[in-house]
Amino acid sequence: MLTANYVGDRTIDIREATPAPPAAGQVQIEVAYNGICGTDLHIFHGSMDARVSMPAIIGHEMSGRIAALGDGVTGWSVGDPVTVMPLDWDGTCPACLAGNQHVCQNLNFIGIDSPGALQGSWNVDASVLVALPETLRLDHAALVEPVAVSVHDVRRSGLVPGEKVVVIGGGPIGVLIATTAREFGGDVVVIELDPTRRQAVADLGFQVLDPTASDQVEWVTEWTHGAGADVVFEVSGAASAVLGATDLAKVRGRLVVVAIHPQPRPINLQRVFWRELTIIGARVYERQDFEKAVELLDAGVIPADLLITRIEPITATADAFAALESGQAMKILIDCQAGARS
Amino acid sequence: MLTANYVGDRTIDIREATPAPPAAGQVQIEVAYNGICGTDLHIFHGSMDARVSMPAIIGHEMSGRIAALGDGVTGWSVGDPVTVMPLDWDGTCPACLAGNQHVCQNLNFIGIDSPGALQGSWNVDASVLVALPETLRLDHAALVEPVAVSVHDVRRSGLVPGEKVVVIGGGPIGVLIATTAREFGGDVVVIELDPTRRQAVADLGFQVLDPTASDQVEWVTEWTHGAGADVVFEVSGAASAVLGATDLAKVRGRLVVVAIHPQPRPINLQRVFWRELTIIGARVYERQDFEKAVELLDAGVIPADLLITRIEPITATADAFAALESGQAMKILIDCQAGARS
Repeated sequence: MLTANYVGDRTIDIREATPAPPAAGQVQIEVAYNGICGTDLHIFHGSMDARVSMPAIIGHEMSGRIAALGDGVTGWSVGDPVTVMPLDWDGTCPACLAGNQHVCQNLNFIGIDSPGALQGSWNVDASVLVALPETLRLDHAALVEPVAVSVHDVRRSGLVPGEKVVVIGGGPIGVLIATTAREFGGDVVVIELDPTRRQAVADLGFQVLDPTASDQVEWVTEWTHGAGADVVFEVSGAASAVLGATDLAKVRGRLVVVAIHPQPRPINLQRVFWRELTIIGARVYERQDFEKAVELLDAGVIPADLLITRIEPITATADAFAALESGQAMKILIDCQAGARS
Repeated sequence: MLTANYVGDRTIDIREATPAPPAAGQVQIEVAYNGICGTDLHIFHGSMDARVSMPAIIGHEMSGRIAALGDGVTGWSVGDPVTVMPLDWDGTCPACLAGNQHVCQNLNFIGIDSPGALQGSWNVDASVLVALPETLRLDHAALVEPVAVSVHDVRRSGLVPGEKVVVIGGGPIGVLIATTAREFGGDVVVIELDPTRRQAVADLGFQVLDPTASDQVEWVTEWTHGAGADVVFEVSGAASAVLGATDLAKVRGRLVVVAIHPQPRPINLQRVFWRELTIIGARVYERQDFEKAVELLDAGVIPADLLITRIEPITATADAFAALESGQAMKILIDCQAGARS
């Protein structure tokens, strides 16, 4: 099989390797597709060199079929289509004991802290498997993980049907959150600066707002009959968006900060106080989010073909990273068998 | 009767006035005591001149007895001891219609936006009255309003018995929140820079932490067996405290920002994300908070005598403002009958 290895210095090496048999409790997955995400790009840029052990086989947005079962694995069969929820918690820390295993204080994020899916054959503990229906295409199934993030974000917001939702940022994550929020019954508007992205969002049937063309606070206030939005998702990552987001929310409204902000950001606490707002942090997902994501993809709710710009063989992994880096693609999937077959 | 009037330019004028009879639906209260709060000081400093109509009779932390009933008032009798929940909502805005009248979008805060209690006789709508038990001293009852704020803050935090609580700031509000949180079953530590305040807090039986003497994150982590605090109240108003507060909270912990922050404050959103924290805004109170505050004061739970530095006659209102301004007192009550009697 082929493996894609991050070896530091913005370099991905493609290597030949022999698949290991699955250990007890593990399954061996023949990886079909692996999507490259923003975190993978951070690793590629060297920002996480202190965390990853090089050479590092990364990748955590995947789909595949079970190729072999280790000793003691029950409930799964060779050939089953699966994805992996890439969280390996210790089960003993205070967060785990309180039932929040997904944000375990000593979390091993599989594909970052331990080997990932950018290889033809991948052994994982059977406990991290999530079943896929045969009706779901395996390329679409590689989106289960990012969709699960959006499901988790929307669940954390406490959205109830009929609520007005503002999504600040119309990139891939913004589109997923908008789609999921709509599916959960929200009435959604997306705020996006870039006209091409605005058009893509509008094509999906969403209201879109160009914040340079209209006063977004005035627009949202009018749209909500003077109340303000029930839920605001800040997905843009811009400091100005964080500062302005509180002005869009109603009394007792919720602001979910989805984008990663490496630097502390100024927040209008006067507004948080005045309107009794709640600001909510959301990270990764729980199993129910993963299962809901499978369901949404299988039902065709997620615009998978719009999000998947193209599919490249594992041999072209480095090129895929470069294309994503230059903003030429939304999501690129790596076909982890293509190179081996050629 | 005497009235204390803010006339601008850091000036309080004491004037003679004739009490008006209560209008239909109103009661006339013979005001016993009125506490001076931070907002009153802001008004005195001129920071709210655009909001108050001068000459302004301010004051909204009060106690008294009903002196007369207007037409149509039922359920109250002359002589009843009462306090006032000083919120007058419109009942028609989106916040009111959603059941959040206390943060009405067009709220009239009685004592700021309309005349308050710094006068011998005060007419208010019967709907804002809150009954006091005869067992509660009227000087202590003047603390019902600030105690209601602390009850609301603690309720907004979702505190459940046994949770670990950090209160950053050991001034009067910090003491009230710590006391209320303890009464609600929390295990409380107070972080305070000032040694005199630390001693006062310790005398109330609280654990206290000098943040300059020990690493507060390390201390809280150890105290909570590696978890972090369930709830953090930021009461100090310092930007550095807001920035550090997120480091004290456990996974899924709640941070209630109690202090007023006129400027946007940098917040560690990376930590909010990583630990799935919730930041909660809390403003004023609801009726149940007022009623709980009456109960806590009547039960002797609140250290009223510690908080009330002294009582001054209404004729000395200007001196009381000056004393509070220079930090020489925690809470000063104005005896609204004393001057008239003398």
